Amino acid sequence: MNGRCVITVGDLGEFGIVARIAGRLPQSGAVLLGPGDDAAVVGAPDGRVVVTTDMLLEGRHFRRDWSSPYDIGRKAAAQNLSDVIAMGADPTAIVVGLGLPSDVGTGWLDDLTDGFRDECDLVGAGVAGGDTTRCDLVVISVTALGDLGGRAPVTRSGARPGDVVAVAGRLGHAAAGLALLESGHEGLPGPDGRRRDDPRRDDPRRDGRAEPYGSDERREDGVAGLVGAHRRPRPPYPCGPQAAALGATAMLDVSDGLLQDLGHVARASGVGIALDPGAFTVTPEMERVARLLAADPLDWVLTGGEDHALAATFPAEVRLPPAWTVVGRVTGGEGVQVSGRTVGQGGWDHFRM
Amino acid sequence: MNGRCVITVGDLGEFGIVARIAGRLPQSGAVLLGPGDDAAVVGAPDGRVVVTTDMLLEGRHFRRDWSSPYDIGRKAAAQNLSDVIAMGADPTAIVVGLGLPSDVGTGWLDDLTDGFRDECDLVGAGVAGGDTTRCDLVVISVTALGDLGGRAPVTRSGARPGDVVAVAGRLGHAAAGLALLESGHEGLPGPDGRRRDDPRRDDPRRDGRAEPYGSDERREDGVAGLVGAHRRPRPPYPCGPQAAALGATAMLDVSDGLLQDLGHVARASGVGIALDPGAFTVTPEMERVARLLAADPLDWVLTGGEDHALAATFPAEVRLPPAWTVVGRVTGGEGVQVSGRTVGQGGWDHFRM
Repeated sequence: MNGRCVITVGDLGEFGIVARIAGRLPQSGAVLLGPGDDAAVVGAPDGRVVVTTDMLLEGRHFRRDWSSPYDIGRKAAAQNLSDVIAMGADPTAIVVGLGLPSDVGTGWLDDLTDGFRDECDLVGAGVAGGDTTRCDLVVISVTALGDLGGRAPVTRSGARPGDVVAVAGRLGHAAAGLALLESGHEGLPGPDGRRRDDPRRDDPRRDGRAEPYGSDERREDGVAGLVGAHRRPRPPYPCGPQAAALGATAMLDVSDGLLQDLGHVARASGVGIALDPGAFTVTPEMERVARLLAADPLDWVLTGGEDHALAATFPAEVRLPPAWTVVGRVTGGEGVQVSGRTVGQGGWDHFRM
Repeated sequence: MNGRCVITVGDLGEFGIVARIAGRLPQSGAVLLGPGDDAAVVGAPDGRVVVTTDMLLEGRHFRRDWSSPYDIGRKAAAQNLSDVIAMGADPTAIVVGLGLPSDVGTGWLDDLTDGFRDECDLVGAGVAGGDTTRCDLVVISVTALGDLGGRAPVTRSGARPGDVVAVAGRLGHAAAGLALLESGHEGLPGPDGRRRDDPRRDDPRRDGRAEPYGSDERREDGVAGLVGAHRRPRPPYPCGPQAAALGATAMLDVSDGLLQDLGHVARASGVGIALDPGAFTVTPEMERVARLLAADPLDWVLTGGEDHALAATFPAEVRLPPAWTVVGRVTGGEGVQVSGRTVGQGGWDHFRM
């Protein structure tokens, strides 16, 4: 231990970190053998396993002064679990690779771990294992696994002319929240380093488990909810396997913006997609923030990428549950059209300078 | 494209990189749905899947001036596949998260990809997918999956007094090679940036597939072979599932040094382990290098961590195949003893400064 008041991950050492993380993770869900061995063992009753991986870098995908460690953990897990449900599978487990600066406090690591755990709890998945190493910046690599439960995986290539295009989950909220943060108008941390609107700020139940999905609606009302949407996406988890069971012909999670992501579906399926801009929901809060920032809220809806909504195509005769909103249809031809005009590929490309 | 002669990953952009990587990866092994969708699908016929993840950082786990990108890819895959076989499972697939500086050349990326692919080829696994993002240093996060084929996973906690301790694979070679590199005596890159002893240096078959396991014995003769052992470990892949089938009571891959790793087995199993130092192989090359560097080659054998040998405990009556060498026995008590003296935990701990 060094002379500072805060115990850091550098004080713990690699094995101490692993033990500390493992101590906060109950064996759960499909995890048959958890952290502590060369590898974990996870149930795969279908006989196939869905697997996806994403790497998040400090400064590029999150900022430690804009998001709490708990939110960062929730978000890192969410964006991978979202990729699993977008195949029509039920998430079973994640494993996490962590690069951490030596001066990161153990409380920060605990909160991050709780974020992974609580997001996984929402879908009955477990944190099966991981790896830590010292790094000058925080690097988080999450790999998520899922089980198809006998269903065929829903890929990007099955859309057919005549199908409807539908979305589930929020669109444009995270983009509006990020725009607010970038403008300096809202949600910057207070002098204690905690966010002014952090619901866990004064919560003595540091080990409290996740609230059921959706029960935090109330405190996400209003403009602060848009910033919250950037910090902590809420993918529509039940809708992925549901869509597969309903016969979705193509599906993906909206991670780079709806236009760009539907462009992937159009290309992979060899079809065109026509969207009706009037079908999208723009909330009064998004309108307010858009006026404040002189922005067009529909831009956020069509090109914002971090809400992890689902977009899917369905045969026209499928009766869709209320969580799904029809926003367009699959056509012959190619590309994505909005109000009859073909649009470019607005969206994120992390490699462009 | 920019004005330089070398096309970089920054020129390609994220989707260009993914397409380029995917183009070098044949669908293989248990990979049922490969790169290009939200997630991959991998066969898991056992109904359970073994999963492990490791993060490798430039400067900490490899140096671009000491290892070719091909070797870095081979090594990153090998150290994860080794964790899978150490559970007694057959590797099925890896997924890879890549953080890459924008100025990395596409040829470098191609060679790295080929390294992942060829190492996976050795065990019949495939590269199922991945994620790339821009980063100031090269970060490689590999997650490997495996299938138990009906066998029970071999953990660290099943060793019983009376068992024998055996190892398969090389010990101390990589540590000797690293010591050579650090001393400046051998294997530094030539003026063309390629290593003097790189067997692929003048090889026109850039897309040539991997040689069968072990066929590169000849060119790994001598001192250069020790440097090669650091750059490209050769885990004894067939020995993991073999040990499980033979009834191994505990097993792990030696990644932090034999003493430290057997310490994990002793602690998890609640036993002691007594090693016979005379049972280990020290090659004439290791003796030569040790004399050159005034080092003790047995230190490399007992504390060197990057050869990814397997260490396992077996009931004394098990007849071990020739790949396994008995080096000690499981006792009552605790800790690891060498020649009757209890030893400290020599080995790597990436978080200690």
